[in-house]
Amino acid sequence: MFSPLIKELIESLRCLPGVGPKSAQKMALYLLERDSQGADRLAQSLRQALDKVGRCHQCRTLTEDTLCPICADDQRNSSRLCIVETPADVIAIESTKQFDGLYFVLLGHLSPIDGIGPEELGLDRLETLAKEVGVEEVIIATNSTVEGEATSHYIAQMLKPHGVDVSRIAQGVPMGGELEYVDGNTLALALEGRKRL
Amino acid sequence: MFSPLIKELIESLRCLPGVGPKSAQKMALYLLERDSQGADRLAQSLRQALDKVGRCHQCRTLTEDTLCPICADDQRNSSRLCIVETPADVIAIESTKQFDGLYFVLLGHLSPIDGIGPEELGLDRLETLAKEVGVEEVIIATNSTVEGEATSHYIAQMLKPHGVDVSRIAQGVPMGGELEYVDGNTLALALEGRKRL
Repeated sequence: MFSPLIKELIESLRCLPGVGPKSAQKMALYLLERDSQGADRLAQSLRQALDKVGRCHQCRTLTEDTLCPICADDQRNSSRLCIVETPADVIAIESTKQFDGLYFVLLGHLSPIDGIGPEELGLDRLETLAKEVGVEEVIIATNSTVEGEATSHYIAQMLKPHGVDVSRIAQGVPMGGELEYVDGNTLALALEGRKRL
Repeated sequence: MFSPLIKELIESLRCLPGVGPKSAQKMALYLLERDSQGADRLAQSLRQALDKVGRCHQCRTLTEDTLCPICADDQRNSSRLCIVETPADVIAIESTKQFDGLYFVLLGHLSPIDGIGPEELGLDRLETLAKEVGVEEVIIATNSTVEGEATSHYIAQMLKPHGVDVSRIAQGVPMGGELEYVDGNTLALALEGRKRL
């Protein structure tokens, strides 16, 4: 019932995460009926981002410059390095305002089944960075998943011989968590990681 | 914390209906990290749709051709015309498979406060259509809102002098509706529109 170009627009909107056939249809009709200016801006910024955004030469996060805004900021403490899986994780940690160092973004985690090994995550560059730039402390903040743990373990083994202070973010009961509703695995981690008062 | 082009992409994704700052960020990072092919397709189809999609010369719905697929289909009964507010309403009525006629899409409803009068809705063209093409029956399927009702009333008054059989879709209790939970206005309409058995 839609003409081919409109169908193609609906189909292509479905590449967005969380957008099913119904919302894609709604979005396409909305853009064409009521917000062609916004659609134009979106088409343009998609094209620009696709053409120009690459990876930060130092931390591998997404940016169109050689260095991302954080790596380029000389106010940051370059002797501390936090290792995360994705650019969104950088935002999450920045929002705590508790970390003043630099980041290293893996853009993924070790997953041999998908062909993602240490090289794909840039771990060779991370090792060079740790050796040469004088990084003293590394905080590993990969996800608390099987793959995140494996990646964390691999990185820790790789960096320890270089005399770097390597730590892993704490795992346990989240803020406001009531024990009754916390799952068993989390509780086991919380018990194991208990701190003396 | 994001570079300017990524920020601009996040901002421009917010023109999509139902997309807030968090989902826009998620979408932008997803496209750049994992689906540059999909993003490319989206940019391209947006550009194409913006450049080529206009209105059907007969029914005013969105299409890149002179006539939309429904108006171009000579199997449809051209003596019946269904008037709806948006292209999405056409899809909704088509999905019932109960209507074999043609459509007329207002792309809006009468709203003097927003400067939308009969001309903006193409009602002059609708009148010509009713006079010249031999439309015998018009079914008005505008929304059951104040504006939809006003628009329906206006169109009915306009078409009646031309000897066209004008009707309005029924209003009442929806399928599966339990009276206990149906709102009072709907129930009042259902009582008023009762049918003799």
